[in-house]
Amino acid sequence: MFRVDLNCDLGESFGRYTLGEQKEILKYVTSANVACGFHAGDPSVMRETVKLAIDNNVKIGAHPGLPDINGFGRREMKITPQEAYDMVVYQIGALQGFLTTCNASMQHVKPHGALYNMAAKDEKLAEAIAQAVYGISPKLVLVGLAGSELTKAGERIGLRTAHEVFADRTYQEDGTLTSRAQTDAMIIDKEQSVAQVIKMVTKGKVMSQQGVEVSVKADSICIHGDGEHALDFAIYIKEKLVQNNIMVSAISE
Amino acid sequence: MFRVDLNCDLGESFGRYTLGEQKEILKYVTSANVACGFHAGDPSVMRETVKLAIDNNVKIGAHPGLPDINGFGRREMKITPQEAYDMVVYQIGALQGFLTTCNASMQHVKPHGALYNMAAKDEKLAEAIAQAVYGISPKLVLVGLAGSELTKAGERIGLRTAHEVFADRTYQEDGTLTSRAQTDAMIIDKEQSVAQVIKMVTKGKVMSQQGVEVSVKADSICIHGDGEHALDFAIYIKEKLVQNNIMVSAISE
Amino acid sequence: MFRVDLNCDLGESFGRYTLGEQKEILKYVTSANVACGFHAGDPSVMRETVKLAIDNNVKIGAHPGLPDINGFGRREMKITPQEAYDMVVYQIGALQGFLTTCNASMQHVKPHGALYNMAAKDEKLAEAIAQAVYGISPKLVLVGLAGSELTKAGERIGLRTAHEVFADRTYQEDGTLTSRAQTDAMIIDKEQSVAQVIKMVTKGKVMSQQGVEVSVKADSICIHGDGEHALDFAIYIKEKLVQNNIMVSAISE
Amino acid sequence: MFRVDLNCDLGESFGRYTLGEQKEILKYVTSANVACGFHAGDPSVMRETVKLAIDNNVKIGAHPGLPDINGFGRREMKITPQEAYDMVVYQIGALQGFLTTCNASMQHVKPHGALYNMAAKDEKLAEAIAQAVYGISPKLVLVGLAGSELTKAGERIGLRTAHEVFADRTYQEDGTLTSRAQTDAMIIDKEQSVAQVIKMVTKGKVMSQQGVEVSVKADSICIHGDGEHALDFAIYIKEKLVQNNIMVSAISE
Repeated sequence: MFRVDLNCDLGESFGRYTLGEQKEILKYVTSANVACGFHAGDPSVMRETVKLAIDNNVKIGAHPGLPDINGFGRREMKITPQEAYDMVVYQIGALQGFLTTCNASMQHVKPHGALYNMAAKDEKLAEAIAQAVYGISPKLVLVGLAGSELTKAGERIGLRTAHEVFADRTYQEDGTLTSRAQTDAMIIDKEQSVAQVIKMVTKGKVMSQQGVEVSVKADSICIHGDGEHALDFAIYIKEKLVQNNIMVSAISE
Repeated sequence: MFRVDLNCDLGESFGRYTLGEQKEILKYVTSANVACGFHAGDPSVMRETVKLAIDNNVKIGAHPGLPDINGFGRREMKITPQEAYDMVVYQIGALQGFLTTCNASMQHVKPHGALYNMAAKDEKLAEAIAQAVYGISPKLVLVGLAGSELTKAGERIGLRTAHEVFADRTYQEDGTLTSRAQTDAMIIDKEQSVAQVIKMVTKGKVMSQQGVEVSVKADSICIHGDGEHALDFAIYIKEKLVQNNIMVSAISE
Repeated sequence: MFRVDLNCDLGESFGRYTLGEQKEILKYVTSANVACGFHAGDPSVMRETVKLAIDNNVKIGAHPGLPDINGFGRREMKITPQEAYDMVVYQIGALQGFLTTCNASMQHVKPHGALYNMAAKDEKLAEAIAQAVYGISPKLVLVGLAGSELTKAGERIGLRTAHEVFADRTYQEDGTLTSRAQTDAMIIDKEQSVAQVIKMVTKGKVMSQQGVEVSVKADSICIHGDGEHALDFAIYIKEKLVQNNIMVSAISE
Repeated sequence: MFRVDLNCDLGESFGRYTLGEQKEILKYVTSANVACGFHAGDPSVMRETVKLAIDNNVKIGAHPGLPDINGFGRREMKITPQEAYDMVVYQIGALQGFLTTCNASMQHVKPHGALYNMAAKDEKLAEAIAQAVYGISPKLVLVGLAGSELTKAGERIGLRTAHEVFADRTYQEDGTLTSRAQTDAMIIDKEQSVAQVIKMVTKGKVMSQQGVEVSVKADSICIHGDGEHALDFAIYIKEKLVQNNIMVSAISE
């Protein structure tokens, strides 16, 4: 039987500012990536999100980002591998604090936004992040873009990795995502999204924009938590996966 | 034989900005309070400071502060006990991240600046901080102003506490420190500072500004790390304590 | 004929985070208090808000706050009068930058949140803020709580002031607002809110919670921009004011 | 007679953190670039620096940077031209606030660190910054790397520009600075630095690392304010310029 994890970025509210319908979406996903205060989230939001995830039996991971709340961690910053290592250790530790007070354990780490994208391509940055995760605990799962430098670095160091795929993004013939700068980057049609995901999970293949099938490993599907139809889509995709005999369970299970 | 701990605030540099001569001062103190990024310090400074402390066999503690780098955590902020709890869990966790990567363990937690002062007087805030520390680990030592609400809250919850005294500050007849707003708040004379400290450690007494002797518990002496003569004073006081048969050792020993 | 200004806090979005329906509410108010990046807002939000206000012929004021985005400027901080002066000069200047690029001029300054409340009671702080405003331009209108230390300080220094009243808050017999900590602080009933406002504008009186009528000057009414029914209430109160022959126009007109 | 301006980055202290000997260095430079709180500086430091510069008859300019105090504005961030425009308007405005309270006027704007370097090469970013400066006032002088996209953009829009050269950096045959990543980027020898500067000012030429003379416009020389020998070098270079009949005066004079 095939299995896949459904992960979602959560805990992205900040002080007076609320983002996402996390109470609802936690009913459908299996892994939660919790923002750690650098690009979103704050200590109070982190505590509340951890509690909600535990109450919903959703596995918890750290979602470290670049130190840029105003840019939501989406603006690339030229940081050194050492800075990346330090930022990731700090943020994993901070989230672990809240897990410890709840007797809960951390399942995974998935970098956020620009840090995720930079680590997908930059081997040195990827290695620094993998070392940070491994240094905290060799049992943590490192989640990165399928086939990226980040998952490679994780595998080299001996971490368990989860290859992440996207339901709503198109792919290129080299296996990378089509840049958002291009008009054909997004899949808007729900049926098409689901079909792509099912093929990735069951056949390990995705049809590229160039019309060539490419191989892709699909351990976890990213559900965006802050879009307008995020909740609807989460419900829909989960239903379809189950109908297609794909078991939806957390990465570590 | 009498014993006392010498603690110092460290890791207070921030990016391009350097503060304190921590490499030198670590040779003389027994416990280091490491800033956690809210009022001073940053992830890279934290990693370096943790490594330096380990290299010098100095015990490490978290030094959580208010979120105000511009004010160095010295400006009181009206935060709720819940916010205090969350901030402290976050900061202890962040520092623990660096300790974990070094296979080192945390000895204590001492709030910084305005948070320390507020927690000395405000029972609810003190309790929230004690709960945060206990929630992370019941084995942590909570360091607070001698006889304050913070040490009381720590003792009620079942934490080991360390009562902190100051060599360079005068005391009032109710056992509190003379406010810095008053002209007689500071002891400038080195001999007088040392005499006060030795009396506090060996007799549990301090002469107040009102001329009445008051009781005080002295588990740890605060050495300021950022003053002009910080290093000189650290060397001098350690020498004098040893000459007076007072063992200088970390709180947890 | 009676006149009153309707002011609203705007430009409170921040990066990825959106707050308030400012496009709609700008159709009904006469003065906009624009957040300046310390407690809310960022440079891009400020530019957009200034443009929107100009397009709607709404007068623009600076809304300086404490440096605490996470707390939305609502947590009191112990700052010195000099720090208050510096923060206010900085924030007025920053907003003036955007006005200058649009050939627009600033009408007023109204401190935000905890800074507003602190300045209402603390004479030194109030004076520092009044000096900052006066130093930028003696033509600016200083908006503060009716009868507060802030409006008094403004009047002493020679600034034009606007006394602000609240439609949805109850008053005490000394003319201050009932603390939000008390259960009877808010007026929920729309009719009662409007009646209180009309009485304040036309008679200069308000019925206190102690049952005694107190004098109050009402130059400007605060419309909260971020509540659930903010827009509805803005529309409603404006209609009622006009029906009662009260002219709604900007403070400076 | 030849003329040149000596400019220096000032106001780079931040809260508890002090950087540079600005009181001394202000005696020797003719233009001060004042940090505006995004990469360094804070409102109180800005007020003090403006006052000091006025007291020393030094012309004042804004020194806007990327929003990254921890990285001192030296880490490149992928920002849009619109974000650059907004950041620059905000920071110029904030500094102008302090100048206004002192009845002083702003002479120039020079971007800082990574923003300066990015604007030297990226035409769109350069244009956005030039528009921001022009929007605030067409009379401001835009200071940028000699022959860069930034000075070109300033000239196209109709601003007066000042081409900046460096005494302590070597040049490439295309007129750009040798990257700091290379070992021959810096000129350590004082005599060689001065000789390079005098040649740039009097002949408009600099010898590149490739052994070919290249043309360079030298309106202003950058004196680093935070190095160990900053003050010594400022005194030395000024003396040598005067000995060589080069008048040292502010850009706008």
